[in-house]
Amino acid sequence: MPLKFDLTATTLSSTDVTQLQAMRTRCARRILLSTSLAASGHPGGSLSSLDMLLVAYSILNHNPLHPRMAERDRLVASIGHISPGMYSVLAEYGYFNETDFLSGFRRTGSGFPGHVESIVPGVEWDTGNLGQGLSAAVGMAQSFKLKKSSNRVFCLMGDGEQQKGQITEAIRHAVKYKLDNLTVLIDRNKLQICGNTEEVMPQCMQKLYGGLGFNTVKLEDGHDYNALYQAMRSAYQNISGIPTVIIARTIMGKGISFMENKAKYHGSPLPPDDLAKALAELGVENDFPQWQERRKQPVSTHTIMSPRTHYPQVQAGQPVVYAADKLTDCRSAYGTALLGLAQANNKAGEPPLIVGISCDLEGSVKMDDFHKQSPQGYLELGIQEHHAAATAGAMSCEGLVTFFSTFGSFAVSEVYNQNRLNDFNHANVKIVATHVGLDVGEDGPTHQCIDYLGLLKNCFRFSVFMPCDPNQTDRIVRYVATHAGNHFVGMGRSKTPVITKEDGSVFYDANYVFTPGKADWLRQGSDATLITYGALTPACLAAWQLLQQESGKSVGVLNMASLIPLDKEAILAAAKIGPIVTVEDHHIETGLGASVATVLLDHGLAPKMKRLGVHQYGGSGKPSDLYKLQGLDAESIARTMLALLG
Amino acid sequence: MPLKFDLTATTLSSTDVTQLQAMRTRCARRILLSTSLAASGHPGGSLSSLDMLLVAYSILNHNPLHPRMAERDRLVASIGHISPGMYSVLAEYGYFNETDFLSGFRRTGSGFPGHVESIVPGVEWDTGNLGQGLSAAVGMAQSFKLKKSSNRVFCLMGDGEQQKGQITEAIRHAVKYKLDNLTVLIDRNKLQICGNTEEVMPQCMQKLYGGLGFNTVKLEDGHDYNALYQAMRSAYQNISGIPTVIIARTIMGKGISFMENKAKYHGSPLPPDDLAKALAELGVENDFPQWQERRKQPVSTHTIMSPRTHYPQVQAGQPVVYAADKLTDCRSAYGTALLGLAQANNKAGEPPLIVGISCDLEGSVKMDDFHKQSPQGYLELGIQEHHAAATAGAMSCEGLVTFFSTFGSFAVSEVYNQNRLNDFNHANVKIVATHVGLDVGEDGPTHQCIDYLGLLKNCFRFSVFMPCDPNQTDRIVRYVATHAGNHFVGMGRSKTPVITKEDGSVFYDANYVFTPGKADWLRQGSDATLITYGALTPACLAAWQLLQQESGKSVGVLNMASLIPLDKEAILAAAKIGPIVTVEDHHIETGLGASVATVLLDHGLAPKMKRLGVHQYGGSGKPSDLYKLQGLDAESIARTMLALLG
Repeated sequence: MPLKFDLTATTLSSTDVTQLQAMRTRCARRILLSTSLAASGHPGGSLSSLDMLLVAYSILNHNPLHPRMAERDRLVASIGHISPGMYSVLAEYGYFNETDFLSGFRRTGSGFPGHVESIVPGVEWDTGNLGQGLSAAVGMAQSFKLKKSSNRVFCLMGDGEQQKGQITEAIRHAVKYKLDNLTVLIDRNKLQICGNTEEVMPQCMQKLYGGLGFNTVKLEDGHDYNALYQAMRSAYQNISGIPTVIIARTIMGKGISFMENKAKYHGSPLPPDDLAKALAELGVENDFPQWQERRKQPVSTHTIMSPRTHYPQVQAGQPVVYAADKLTDCRSAYGTALLGLAQANNKAGEPPLIVGISCDLEGSVKMDDFHKQSPQGYLELGIQEHHAAATAGAMSCEGLVTFFSTFGSFAVSEVYNQNRLNDFNHANVKIVATHVGLDVGEDGPTHQCIDYLGLLKNCFRFSVFMPCDPNQTDRIVRYVATHAGNHFVGMGRSKTPVITKEDGSVFYDANYVFTPGKADWLRQGSDATLITYGALTPACLAAWQLLQQESGKSVGVLNMASLIPLDKEAILAAAKIGPIVTVEDHHIETGLGASVATVLLDHGLAPKMKRLGVHQYGGSGKPSDLYKLQGLDAESIARTMLALLG
Repeated sequence: MPLKFDLTATTLSSTDVTQLQAMRTRCARRILLSTSLAASGHPGGSLSSLDMLLVAYSILNHNPLHPRMAERDRLVASIGHISPGMYSVLAEYGYFNETDFLSGFRRTGSGFPGHVESIVPGVEWDTGNLGQGLSAAVGMAQSFKLKKSSNRVFCLMGDGEQQKGQITEAIRHAVKYKLDNLTVLIDRNKLQICGNTEEVMPQCMQKLYGGLGFNTVKLEDGHDYNALYQAMRSAYQNISGIPTVIIARTIMGKGISFMENKAKYHGSPLPPDDLAKALAELGVENDFPQWQERRKQPVSTHTIMSPRTHYPQVQAGQPVVYAADKLTDCRSAYGTALLGLAQANNKAGEPPLIVGISCDLEGSVKMDDFHKQSPQGYLELGIQEHHAAATAGAMSCEGLVTFFSTFGSFAVSEVYNQNRLNDFNHANVKIVATHVGLDVGEDGPTHQCIDYLGLLKNCFRFSVFMPCDPNQTDRIVRYVATHAGNHFVGMGRSKTPVITKEDGSVFYDANYVFTPGKADWLRQGSDATLITYGALTPACLAAWQLLQQESGKSVGVLNMASLIPLDKEAILAAAKIGPIVTVEDHHIETGLGASVATVLLDHGLAPKMKRLGVHQYGGSGKPSDLYKLQGLDAESIARTMLALLG
């Protein structure tokens, strides 16, 4: 039976301490062996945070037989590199046996990667880039508060990573929303890769956390089991409305005389000779050669956890159909759809299912109606996009349908890596960016997000959807709410007409169902095809008309609202018809045009083709002027197509 | 003559105050008029920070006739949206006349964009994304310290943007490096877009700055000219080794009764009726209609400043040639080249010309020899990549050849937007990332940067160079040091062989000169071509050998070290030869293969082609295993090529 403390006791018994000491020795052995076997990895910090981990897992409610049971507490290791420590402790608590860990650590295809990943039973969040774990932990703690569930969250952090600015953002969130179910554990070994933390970059954690409103607890000895127990027990039972940080002074390489307080052991395993000495100090057998032999066998994969698959049942609500003569912006349609989703799913006085997060742009991103309808489901996270994106990812894995809305430049360009980390974590975040492209106009290049597709193409699991009008917006928003996965939905700022069929009736009418990977022929054509999406769809339809009326050309218009996944068949069909012009309010080298080019090449096709897009940073001015300047107005599009048609 | 205070005076004279009041009225008029004319923009914060700006420009050493004179002090407006305030004040100080501003503000092609840009005389740094300006200001202040020049730097910030985590990073840098030539001015109007700053996201600036080591000054009335003068004068003369922040309580919309303390005026201009009332309150004529008429004329462009062009003379030093049998890693070659550059350009006891910045990875990125040679030129910025990237950009514009080195995931993925902002600013930063691709191996997906090209393709002014061996690394590093512009140089972590010619002699020998946009035929072939770069070049050469020896195929190998700009002619030449296989340690959809596809399509070519690259997140394991798993080993490459050859 793994160790589990009786939290009514205010101190540990001597039996408890003895048991922890024995566990420490076994875990220290595994830390040393695993890193020496892999000839890489991070033993130093693993040894300094080991005692904190051992005590934490004896306090938290968890079950190695049911590593994803809903009522479990969470421990997020923000220092993903202390994987040897985490895996050693998880083995100790029965999540897997040490053979799997020691024979697989850092081997291709094994279940024990170099930085902690949630394929390992007991690991809650993939980390590796420092300074990110607290945002995930805050997201989990926030989710439990919203769901009125009593789970607690511990976040183990290093002291070096406290330098990352994102941490300040996460701290503010935790204080504002009174996340007393959150405890931050800082492994204060005073060493980072390049030496003493105070020499590398002076900081004062107590003033930082305390000044921003945390309850701070300082432990002079982070290896003293009783001190750790008392501080963590108190934090675990904290209902003060104030989150806690425990800053525990520890020793890098603790327990091995020649490793203690040496920065080099941050990322250097012991060579075999030193390993032998270290194991002798621990008083354990040196079975390194046997394990080396064992590691020649193929890796075992049976411990690997599959990604979380739970996604809640969500009511899509009643689609809103905008009439052909309605002039509105897609972001208002988003706001209306979000309100509809809230009405269908969030009950007054009950925990919200639909959650909205914004960063000081509630009105601009049209979350205000949602906020009024579901005050309990709306989080205002301030101008803190890095944290907001990361925490939204964590919340989206806790059964909350999490919408994160801000301008495109802040939702993707500024926080690309936070989205990437959410992608690693198989999150379900719904990023709805309301101001993308040159359509943002007068606010100029910093605010004109022309790279959302170019950036998110680098994430293997993100979808990218760009509705072309309010009707399609409504349906896409309802789609992403009701489907698992990381979804990006982007739109411009301006009012835009409802797209209609040739007969003037609404194209995306009540019968329309959005399907990822399916493009729509807004107009059929026998001579050539315009492929477009989003804000420039009306310009393409105007070009279609010009081409028809003034030049007698029959040009199809294909709306590629689903940019990832892409409708390859539609592209191939277009290539069979004739020349192709791609038209987008996006960087010309990284958007749809580039995607279409790779699809065509992959199929050995080279139709006459011209890519139209943003070919220099946009200026500050009216969107229509900016489009014209970059050859993206209806006349330029028509002219380009005519030139191709010859 | 613009106002200039005699700083020997401890207080302002009543004449000074009267003059400031008159200036305020004229500037307030311009703020209101410009935003109403553009029907967009940010009058509220412009009015709250106006008095700070007026006093600041009367203290700073600057000259409207020589807006880029070397000895000028700097004012960075981190709140780029207060452009109406900045332009009004700069007009007041004689940088341009108000007609240019009022007739051009926020019009396409004019010299007066919606967020401040350095095309405007007197504007030092393009901003718009909040929380970035302090990093730029710190970079400038740091540059002056390194150059032992006495210029001072003021940074005007908002209070809402203090929520951004990056600010904490910038604060720590300023404290660590004793930047007492830096003064932060915070416009504490207590309002952000969504309301009261304390409700949106509680913060305590005094505790934050003070706790991290700044000298903090709080002004109860940020519109009191004498209080502003005294605080700024004192900060301007500060030589304590401690930077200063002045937190000045102000009033959003100050001076217009019905605008004061209203959050909506953050980003809402006055409609004509309200404008008339406001101008009446100021006691000035309402000439709105005349200006409206004036704005129907084409925009004037004569005020537009061209980008900074000064780039220092740098000695490239003696190239290092690695012998054919030398096995080393490219990062060591980088370290040696950087040392050589320092030896050739940095003189002991003198200000450094070559500057190196790292983030707690000095040894891994091989900056240690440089650090020893040029201690005065090395900056250790801790685990604070967002700030480091941004501040490196600013330093690179101050005549310092600035190398910023860390792992690829931290140098690009994590800080893409900071690079983008440097790109707007025509910076000259040299990012050398030492750990990119699956080659990073055991550290796993968070550390495997497979998106550097996919990301930087979105920046219009960045070059991307990927050397394939230590010799090419040496020459590329010397190239980027001696040439203006933002350059990214990437390399793997592992040791890699010296690339040789067929006869076994060194390919990139003493005669080699790196030329952007020029690819190298490592092997000529008459049947087909492998196009590659960087870490997979040796695998392609091994595949070349396999194809020749085992299948009798003559396959060329083209090394595309210059990924931006691309050697289009070489690609077209390859297409004429036969099938093409692109091979890269990069995301398959966003790397070289995608670039090659667009080039071919643009030229109507569709040779048989196969793109090889990273098609799923990498695991944790030996690079050779990871490559094999993704079909990137020599055998897989050869097999793919054979299949294409049929």
